[in-house]
Amino acid sequence: MSLDHARAKPHDRLAAALEADLGAVGALIRERMQSEAAPRIPAVTAHLIEAGGKRLRPMLVLAAARLLGYAGPFHVHLAVAVEFIHTATLLHDDVVDDSKQRRGRPTANLLWDNMSSVLVGDYLFARSFQLMVEAGDLRVLGILSDASATISEGEVLQLVAARDLATTEDTYLKVIRGKTAALFSAATQAGAVVAGADATQEEALRDYGDALGIAFQIIDDLLDIEGTDAIGKNRGDDLREGKLTLPVIRAVAAASDEERAFWTRVIARGQVEDADIERARDLMKRHGALASTRAEAEMWVGRAKAALGRLPGHPLREMLSDLADYVVAREA
Amino acid sequence: MSLDHARAKPHDRLAAALEADLGAVGALIRERMQSEAAPRIPAVTAHLIEAGGKRLRPMLVLAAARLLGYAGPFHVHLAVAVEFIHTATLLHDDVVDDSKQRRGRPTANLLWDNMSSVLVGDYLFARSFQLMVEAGDLRVLGILSDASATISEGEVLQLVAARDLATTEDTYLKVIRGKTAALFSAATQAGAVVAGADATQEEALRDYGDALGIAFQIIDDLLDIEGTDAIGKNRGDDLREGKLTLPVIRAVAAASDEERAFWTRVIARGQVEDADIERARDLMKRHGALASTRAEAEMWVGRAKAALGRLPGHPLREMLSDLADYVVAREA
Repeated sequence: MSLDHARAKPHDRLAAALEADLGAVGALIRERMQSEAAPRIPAVTAHLIEAGGKRLRPMLVLAAARLLGYAGPFHVHLAVAVEFIHTATLLHDDVVDDSKQRRGRPTANLLWDNMSSVLVGDYLFARSFQLMVEAGDLRVLGILSDASATISEGEVLQLVAARDLATTEDTYLKVIRGKTAALFSAATQAGAVVAGADATQEEALRDYGDALGIAFQIIDDLLDIEGTDAIGKNRGDDLREGKLTLPVIRAVAAASDEERAFWTRVIARGQVEDADIERARDLMKRHGALASTRAEAEMWVGRAKAALGRLPGHPLREMLSDLADYVVAREA
Repeated sequence: MSLDHARAKPHDRLAAALEADLGAVGALIRERMQSEAAPRIPAVTAHLIEAGGKRLRPMLVLAAARLLGYAGPFHVHLAVAVEFIHTATLLHDDVVDDSKQRRGRPTANLLWDNMSSVLVGDYLFARSFQLMVEAGDLRVLGILSDASATISEGEVLQLVAARDLATTEDTYLKVIRGKTAALFSAATQAGAVVAGADATQEEALRDYGDALGIAFQIIDDLLDIEGTDAIGKNRGDDLREGKLTLPVIRAVAAASDEERAFWTRVIARGQVEDADIERARDLMKRHGALASTRAEAEMWVGRAKAALGRLPGHPLREMLSDLADYVVAREA
């Protein structure tokens, strides 16, 4: 049993520790995604939200609240609110990116239409604010509406920066804070606030979520280049979409004139042949951009774990720490 | 001066009475539509929000608060929050409807792209919740998140009901409550709550907004059929999009077999020739559907004015009453 426990992925161990809470989250999701007026809403929502998402963000809320000893019911509301915001952004992203696949299944915009994805996303966003209102804490509403604004800003920034070879690492950091870290840190901070955390604990949990989210997204971007073909994701997608991720930015910065011409054709002009994906990867490897990107992610994992050090000892704290290590160790 | 005053449209008289507040609303809109990270956001927002919208919804918030004697600063925040929610829904609607023109100008989705419209809408939605958090009243947050959910439900319902000749008047009412009345009633109710209204006053102002919004949308739909060509709106658009508005539902209910075949071709199959718009109008006229639709709107205006009767006397109350009359009297 203890060997099994040690072998289980940190994510699964967290899920086991939070099993009852996650059951309540699942039940509340099913309840709140309903719409008497428009049955298409639960249909679209269920397609995405029950397609095997890992419930990572709800677990961050729950774990933060529980490790501070919270015993009330509202961490469940906030966990669902965070998952609804996440689902809404996925629905809108798939419209923005014109995606065909998500979590190994056809996207909602393909199965229904772009309109349904836009409107059901709006519905879930509104529902998430209703849940926060029920939880009854204005500070949590402030944290999650700030995060929502940062998420859309990051997406717009990514849109504008696409195909722009002059994109800086600073812009990249803003983009991934918006894409991922803003909701991670809002999740852990909201969990802290609902549990009545003091300022040190709240800041520690917010910093953990922020650093975890940044590390997570850096590795996600890296896996698009060097990962094995995971289900539902095609390698090289970011390159084909002209997204300037960290290893690309670093390879471009180190490029010779001839290499720069290659990046201009592939990224700026969007003329990508299949062989270009390999060539791009070789260039990133040659300039050490893949290794230094991984090192950057590991630095953020270090920050995430350091933030946890400011919290009281608790089994959930150790699981969150292992989760941070796993974020860079994972292969898909 | 008093003759001019009597001739001025109710909307302009309200704007004059609320001039200082509307100035503060304009300043706060310009401040909060900014984004340091993504300058495209204010560009898209400004295109729409400064294109001569009538600021009707912010005025409803301001008038409700002022007629109950509110003297604090937060009705301005709520007025901007309501205008941002409205602007966000317009941006998303234009994507959903693939619209080319709004307020006499090219739509944002045409000038930039659908992605920008989706994401900037999301941003404004988040910003509106930040403003409500600043206003600091959880009940207002509940009212406006409920309204936001009703808005998206109504839009999804409209999407699903399009081209469906079996659409009932009950469904139509749900659709227009979502499209228009939900935000009108949330605006007046939020103004009441921020002013510390008692239950009777709050309910009266909510009912006024609801009835005003329903009358407004019924007439809007009617003007699409019998109105003069207003700037930025083409007559017959709803028919071409297969929308089942009240006069259509009533004409379909009274249709002969041959007329039903016409409606099936035009609405259900979407085969619309220019001459069909005239024929549709003639059929609606022949069956009294235009007149009975106008009578329905007038009934709602009566309800709106009756609701005002439950409020204390105030010049703003008279202007809101005149506004209700004007909603059915307007020609564009």
